[in-house]
Amino acid sequence: MRIAHIAPVATTIPPPKSGSVETMTSLLTEGLVARGHHVTLFATGDSKTSARLEAIYPHGYWHDENMWPWELYEMLNLAAAVERAGDFDIIHYEAAYYPMSLAFARLSPTPIVQTLHHSPSAAEIRLWSRYPEAPFVAISNEQARLLDGLNVVATVLHGIDTDNFAFREKPDDYLLFLGRFTDGKGVLQAIEIARRVGMRLILAAAEDEYYREKVAPQVDGRTIVYFGEADFASKVKLYGGARALLYPIQAREPFGLVLAEAMACGTPVAALDKGAVREVVDQGETGVIFDDLEQMANELPRVFDLDRRRVRDRAVARFGVARMVEGYIDVYQRTVEASRARRP
Amino acid sequence: MRIAHIAPVATTIPPPKSGSVETMTSLLTEGLVARGHHVTLFATGDSKTSARLEAIYPHGYWHDENMWPWELYEMLNLAAAVERAGDFDIIHYEAAYYPMSLAFARLSPTPIVQTLHHSPSAAEIRLWSRYPEAPFVAISNEQARLLDGLNVVATVLHGIDTDNFAFREKPDDYLLFLGRFTDGKGVLQAIEIARRVGMRLILAAAEDEYYREKVAPQVDGRTIVYFGEADFASKVKLYGGARALLYPIQAREPFGLVLAEAMACGTPVAALDKGAVREVVDQGETGVIFDDLEQMANELPRVFDLDRRRVRDRAVARFGVARMVEGYIDVYQRTVEASRARRP
Repeated sequence: MRIAHIAPVATTIPPPKSGSVETMTSLLTEGLVARGHHVTLFATGDSKTSARLEAIYPHGYWHDENMWPWELYEMLNLAAAVERAGDFDIIHYEAAYYPMSLAFARLSPTPIVQTLHHSPSAAEIRLWSRYPEAPFVAISNEQARLLDGLNVVATVLHGIDTDNFAFREKPDDYLLFLGRFTDGKGVLQAIEIARRVGMRLILAAAEDEYYREKVAPQVDGRTIVYFGEADFASKVKLYGGARALLYPIQAREPFGLVLAEAMACGTPVAALDKGAVREVVDQGETGVIFDDLEQMANELPRVFDLDRRRVRDRAVARFGVARMVEGYIDVYQRTVEASRARRP
Repeated sequence: MRIAHIAPVATTIPPPKSGSVETMTSLLTEGLVARGHHVTLFATGDSKTSARLEAIYPHGYWHDENMWPWELYEMLNLAAAVERAGDFDIIHYEAAYYPMSLAFARLSPTPIVQTLHHSPSAAEIRLWSRYPEAPFVAISNEQARLLDGLNVVATVLHGIDTDNFAFREKPDDYLLFLGRFTDGKGVLQAIEIARRVGMRLILAAAEDEYYREKVAPQVDGRTIVYFGEADFASKVKLYGGARALLYPIQAREPFGLVLAEAMACGTPVAALDKGAVREVVDQGETGVIFDDLEQMANELPRVFDLDRRRVRDRAVARFGVARMVEGYIDVYQRTVEASRARRP
């Protein structure tokens, strides 16, 4: 197939440090090329890809305050593909945050499929419902349930590059929190758990206002340790050395990439039952999903008892890139067929 | 002609209180309908127009915090017109702030012309230059000069409804500042002038953070008086009663609607020589353009000596709606012809 893959133009593909959408976009593009598809990646000029790179901008707007308002940069990146729609069988729009693809849904002769990366509000769904035919891919069933009245063609869970997440059989003796410092991610709850069980907790995320105000006062360098933002190599080391990843999530997240990543290193997870957690964690196998914080504190050792080799194997089977790439190929094929059926 | 006029969907057309883009959009639409054109106004459902109203949204995003992110609402409003492009000879995109029309420039079979309502940055011009053929209308030559490398098809100065700006021959004894409270609009400089010449100054604008921090401490209720935000009727009264409008503008504004409005009431203006001021004010006839604040303070009585009847007549001749409407009809005709010439 001739595929236009439209990346966000915030930063490079793959991203310099973290960036789940950029990472996933890169893995998918590379996987499609490896399977012989003709992929044109619309991304920033400093991106690295084995697809054909189509770059309108030399770099992303995260790195250039002159690229403002950023929305227009995303929009013209997609427009550049739609203007050449005849060159492609399918256009896959990946840019985060809001589906500009809808604006082109009825103007593009080539179907545009959109992966959604956040949990939309009811008001957003109401607006998007103007385009009930526009094909969406959900990243979890949890998210798909929110897309009421929209054309959700599939749920494709994210894949991760499991080869790069080294398995570690014998961890060190600490707990890990990895993710942005927000109320939704539950960092304060993770600290509470660590204090109650008397284990060391390493916090890995970029320093920000929330960190300085709410987290830093609790960091003592002994029980609660701040690592900073981890690049990929450090992240893998941090996962591998942890007895468990703490995931006392407070918001209804549509996925939870850190869960899959930790599991790929053999590290079981201690999670609360929110959002897509049940779709990512196999209860009692790759982690334990607790009813509440109280139970997590009281029964945390159940997580340590899980077989790390089995955690790893299960993660590779469920979140390997191959499954995601094949999921998308199936989506593309079905979308192209549906579109041809509508236009005789 | 069959004209799709795409309003901003922030609030009603015309606006409830102030809103220069919404006011100008309304005047243009009504003027086009009065001349027998078939106008479809894409605006909020609570708008009032004699054109055919096409409303995707019941109300605007200024009045509904659920309508977020607002950019997508503007975009889908334009998309709704482009999807029916065959019904129109021309699409005129009016929504403020950034030209989403570019995204559709090469996808719409009907030409889209965009009026620009702000002074774009060099970075914006660089981005927009990807579409050197897309037709822009500038609202002043000052603004047109910024649009380097773009297709500026005309400069059309704003019109105002001069019938509704009642002429007043004998003013009261105060100076007037009307406009948003920002550094760029020069409210602090207006206060300085009033203090130096020992005249009363009335400030009319919505209360905001800037007002509370920087303006309120200088309001004494005698020399410096705060009126609040003026609705249309109050605005006309305030203009008419003023000996002069103070316009010590600090930013390079692309137009300056308050200048034309004050003049239409017979009130001469005291302005600094910035942005489009020289295009709006006739030196020594409808106002005095000063080199700097010092000169404005020293020579302010020159403004009071101007003939108010002549100020009014000149404003009506130059800023009446008819001139603006005819300017746009000319733009539409030339754009349609140019577009037909390119597509044989």
